[in-house]
Amino acid sequence: MTGSGTRGFASDNCSGAHPAMLEAIARANQGHVSSYGADPETARFGDLVREEFGDLATGFPMLNGTGANVAALRAMARPHQAVICASTAHIHIDETAAPEVIAGLKLLTVDTPDGKLTPDLAATRLVDPADVPHAAWPAVISVAQATEVGTVYTPEEIAGLAKFAHENGMLLHLDGARIANAAASQGLSLSEISLGAGADVLTLGANKNGAVFGEAVVFAKPELANGFEVLRKGSLQLASKMRFVSAQLNAQLENGLWREIADHSNSMARLLGDGIGWTEGADLGQPVEANIVFLSMPIEAARKLVEACGPHPPLLFEAGEAGVIRLVCSWDTTPEDVDGLLGQIRHALH
Amino acid sequence: MTGSGTRGFASDNCSGAHPAMLEAIARANQGHVSSYGADPETARFGDLVREEFGDLATGFPMLNGTGANVAALRAMARPHQAVICASTAHIHIDETAAPEVIAGLKLLTVDTPDGKLTPDLAATRLVDPADVPHAAWPAVISVAQATEVGTVYTPEEIAGLAKFAHENGMLLHLDGARIANAAASQGLSLSEISLGAGADVLTLGANKNGAVFGEAVVFAKPELANGFEVLRKGSLQLASKMRFVSAQLNAQLENGLWREIADHSNSMARLLGDGIGWTEGADLGQPVEANIVFLSMPIEAARKLVEACGPHPPLLFEAGEAGVIRLVCSWDTTPEDVDGLLGQIRHALH
Amino acid sequence: MTGSGTRGFASDNCSGAHPAMLEAIARANQGHVSSYGADPETARFGDLVREEFGDLATGFPMLNGTGANVAALRAMARPHQAVICASTAHIHIDETAAPEVIAGLKLLTVDTPDGKLTPDLAATRLVDPADVPHAAWPAVISVAQATEVGTVYTPEEIAGLAKFAHENGMLLHLDGARIANAAASQGLSLSEISLGAGADVLTLGANKNGAVFGEAVVFAKPELANGFEVLRKGSLQLASKMRFVSAQLNAQLENGLWREIADHSNSMARLLGDGIGWTEGADLGQPVEANIVFLSMPIEAARKLVEACGPHPPLLFEAGEAGVIRLVCSWDTTPEDVDGLLGQIRHALH
Amino acid sequence: MTGSGTRGFASDNCSGAHPAMLEAIARANQGHVSSYGADPETARFGDLVREEFGDLATGFPMLNGTGANVAALRAMARPHQAVICASTAHIHIDETAAPEVIAGLKLLTVDTPDGKLTPDLAATRLVDPADVPHAAWPAVISVAQATEVGTVYTPEEIAGLAKFAHENGMLLHLDGARIANAAASQGLSLSEISLGAGADVLTLGANKNGAVFGEAVVFAKPELANGFEVLRKGSLQLASKMRFVSAQLNAQLENGLWREIADHSNSMARLLGDGIGWTEGADLGQPVEANIVFLSMPIEAARKLVEACGPHPPLLFEAGEAGVIRLVCSWDTTPEDVDGLLGQIRHALH
Repeated sequence: MTGSGTRGFASDNCSGAHPAMLEAIARANQGHVSSYGADPETARFGDLVREEFGDLATGFPMLNGTGANVAALRAMARPHQAVICASTAHIHIDETAAPEVIAGLKLLTVDTPDGKLTPDLAATRLVDPADVPHAAWPAVISVAQATEVGTVYTPEEIAGLAKFAHENGMLLHLDGARIANAAASQGLSLSEISLGAGADVLTLGANKNGAVFGEAVVFAKPELANGFEVLRKGSLQLASKMRFVSAQLNAQLENGLWREIADHSNSMARLLGDGIGWTEGADLGQPVEANIVFLSMPIEAARKLVEACGPHPPLLFEAGEAGVIRLVCSWDTTPEDVDGLLGQIRHALH
Repeated sequence: MTGSGTRGFASDNCSGAHPAMLEAIARANQGHVSSYGADPETARFGDLVREEFGDLATGFPMLNGTGANVAALRAMARPHQAVICASTAHIHIDETAAPEVIAGLKLLTVDTPDGKLTPDLAATRLVDPADVPHAAWPAVISVAQATEVGTVYTPEEIAGLAKFAHENGMLLHLDGARIANAAASQGLSLSEISLGAGADVLTLGANKNGAVFGEAVVFAKPELANGFEVLRKGSLQLASKMRFVSAQLNAQLENGLWREIADHSNSMARLLGDGIGWTEGADLGQPVEANIVFLSMPIEAARKLVEACGPHPPLLFEAGEAGVIRLVCSWDTTPEDVDGLLGQIRHALH
Repeated sequence: MTGSGTRGFASDNCSGAHPAMLEAIARANQGHVSSYGADPETARFGDLVREEFGDLATGFPMLNGTGANVAALRAMARPHQAVICASTAHIHIDETAAPEVIAGLKLLTVDTPDGKLTPDLAATRLVDPADVPHAAWPAVISVAQATEVGTVYTPEEIAGLAKFAHENGMLLHLDGARIANAAASQGLSLSEISLGAGADVLTLGANKNGAVFGEAVVFAKPELANGFEVLRKGSLQLASKMRFVSAQLNAQLENGLWREIADHSNSMARLLGDGIGWTEGADLGQPVEANIVFLSMPIEAARKLVEACGPHPPLLFEAGEAGVIRLVCSWDTTPEDVDGLLGQIRHALH
Repeated sequence: MTGSGTRGFASDNCSGAHPAMLEAIARANQGHVSSYGADPETARFGDLVREEFGDLATGFPMLNGTGANVAALRAMARPHQAVICASTAHIHIDETAAPEVIAGLKLLTVDTPDGKLTPDLAATRLVDPADVPHAAWPAVISVAQATEVGTVYTPEEIAGLAKFAHENGMLLHLDGARIANAAASQGLSLSEISLGAGADVLTLGANKNGAVFGEAVVFAKPELANGFEVLRKGSLQLASKMRFVSAQLNAQLENGLWREIADHSNSMARLLGDGIGWTEGADLGQPVEANIVFLSMPIEAARKLVEACGPHPPLLFEAGEAGVIRLVCSWDTTPEDVDGLLGQIRHALH
């Protein structure tokens, strides 16, 4: 158990909340409103979703990322169907089998070079109709935008996956825990890299972009959202005082705060990535396209660095003689923090 | 969709957050700490739980009430077992079959006169061992403290249920969404009316007692809590920035804030109940023992009253010629609010 | 563990298989055919289902009764929805929470005087649309034809339930574990008392009517059966050598063997019921309408009788000073068996 | 839909039942016995299991293979845990996500060269304790004996997997749909290649070895079997007239009938494999160790062969320019059948 309060690079979940999020909660804390979403902040969220994603889009505030993903998948597939995803997908390795237990879905995983699925990779997990009813039928492709290794999909790539999914009777789900970083990284809108490019359902992240708590699920079309109120509640994701989730989502969507925060954490990641590039003995494990940097260095140095990182150290993956460290930049990461880390990296290497 | 901001009596979920909750969140928002509960606020919550419930107790912050109940039940019974509860239980009528879908449990319901189970009532749902493996075996008794109709269990009643449960190979779960009201109402501690009286697992409510979001599950003994970290995550209830839940729970547990808030909403409910008692044509549907008041009046008057209540009206149950209205007092209900409602009641009756 | 081989009245599951069932299996055992249902016996079963239930009907051979019921319910409702049924329903008390665990359904039970639901009784379990998404929405009414207490629904009663179900957005499921007894009892066809009267889905029993193993699910319309092949397999109910189930079903449906067997067991039950009616100190707990007889007698006598029944005694329900014994007649029950039992009853009473 | 009755090589599910199985059913069809397993045939099965697998072993008759596997896994792991298996495992590709839906388990799959897991391959799917509670924890290794591609594990290999499983806090499950073929192939007993070698739970196949219907689950130790009666029923696998499953299992276990049948189908497979080895243009895709033969030939010839196979053709996997055909020998395959097929193969190649 740790918590010095010192800023680090362990995760964008370790950073606190952006001040605008607390202000939004305080502003929403005026008297009584209807509970469970029949409140003005949630109505306003509906408007902002339509502004951002189009008139047919519907948004639902949720409590956390795993819950948002699992409830979204429940809306997209029936129990005993399957979801094609990367073997690095959060829904596969970080959600404690909740997609299986709660949504009753089989995950069909594919190894990828960079955390990104392609139609060709997904095609390896299609099922021959002759194998029905024995094989679980893939009903959804799910990809993370940005991915768990910090790479991003271009609108063309999303469109290609959507086309492939639809041609094969599937829907395309985006786990957008870091959708803001993916959009800011490409100078595009949230929609242009997700629903606007053809995806059907988006888990819209807020937590990792500075919120106190809360995410959302956005459906491209009303027929996809049909009955989702029930699935949200039955998936343990209905906030009684929903105004406090909606208020934070609204504060992110209004005036482009989401982009401002994501631009900042992305730029800190680029700064860090550039510094690593100039550091002898250190390498980038993946291109830096969002707010995550994978630092590769000799295992001994990597262990030394992680130890030096103090009470909440970043993740270290050991791969033979190399150690790969996941470094994540947050809304409050400063250039000085990056400089400090680069110094620690150089020190660990010598 | 409604939300004038005007205070009403629809639900303690319609009121906003007590100012101390926002202060607690702000105070916890200092720099980086480990995510998912390895932070100082959550450690402090562990200490406060042991202070309140004894050295063997373990507490887990959760996201919402339904999630806390379902995860608690998953820890207490295996899929295909059963839970004995009142037919008015929140887990039966207000959780969208999540105990069935997510925990795989059958609910064996009993009608009660006042929302309260007794050993005799629970005994009607026991299963003859000769009916195994065909019948689902009851592994848990679950009662709400305070109940959904605003009544409370004394420590002796909890002890009696616990004894009955244990003698029959079951555990006793308390849905404490309004545990603070139940304890304050009897001038007792949280533990004295729950785990201290023999219950095994408590869903410790915070939301209805003024929190922005968040509840907890508390286990009486370590062996009951074994593996609960996994069940919490797999039940979609793990907060990434858990410090913000824990900070609110801590603010409630420290310095008796939970009792101060609950004493207030209880006393407003008593004021309202007394006023109804003095009002000709109006009756109390249940004794007022916590912060909920059931007002019974002729159906026409009841409909008139509900209409007059504006944008977020209280629940009306129609029962032949009578209408029963559920009225809930909150941390911010004032004596003037109660007076105003009593005036509306008198007006509706004439 | 028991098994003297002596015929008794414990259950129509205790009797063996009717010789025609073994002959059917032997006849189907000719060389190789496609597995999993693409065989001539199963094709023939499809034809016989259409002959009996109409051109739109589709039938699926299944492995056992609980499996057939649970798979049928999965096809009729989505996880988190609800099923209205009698509190005596097999799906509620004898299926080990499989409807909850596997289909994710909440059962909303109603007490009945005679094991039979009516629209009025079912109406007490309807959900107010205002309670969505909190309440589990009833999507199905499920009744047993014949019921678990040996009573039967007339075509008019089935039609009334179907009308009520459809008017309220629900489907009507019949658990026909003893459908043959119910049809024979009324001199009607299988369809006239089930799908032909408006029910949507029928679990067509074969096991209790003399089969070695096997049941079926029959859907009134193709759109209800859509995708059921997958649900059957995913519900662990797909027989690899399906011809052997289909052959037995075919032998029952062809030449009215089902009726011949059921007429016999029903008439034995009537004989037994009449004998009980003439016996002082013994009473019928329910009218005898199928092959089940509920014998009510003083508890001491009831215990004495059960003890005298030897190795596989009938079920005894103790109700204060009375004991109620469930007696079931089978395809192989003889008038001499009935006489013998009546003698034992008289002996137990003296 | 097909079913000429002509013997083929599509599957050991396409062949009918061995005459001894029908005789066993007929022999068990004497009068009444207790249902649901409290009958003499099932008691006798318990004895035979102890004779074969040791005094601590417990056996449970089941209805089919998928059901037996899923129920066995439910007994070995809790919902939200994981099972390590080969990517070719029947539980992964042929059970319609039932392990996920019904048991709530995540399958962690590994590619293998020959359908066989090794400790090294399984080790790639272990989870770092630091990833708990986010990652689903592997509680079981499941392998098929014989595998789905017709290879077998030696006792030493089973022992190695068991040791690895136990050292890592897991149990070892064997899907023994073709356990008889695996044992006969090595001249060993059923136990020597399964529980006797260290595996914890065995799905004991009967269906593919000539039964009309039925399989079993055998637990090495009583503590593993604890509560399995309930899981069997709740997994829709409890036969009401269980004597008819047990009688077939008994007929297989008594006097070594299982080995006689398996020796025959294995020897036919060897004959076929040898013939293929001598055929220019044809190759074996896997070593022939049980009753399955993988024939590899140019895709055009493969298609021609499959077409020539008539109404229930064997499975063809297309792999670029090659076609791989799965050929399965049954209890009733004759040397003439093999000669005939070899002729067809040669014809297809020219």
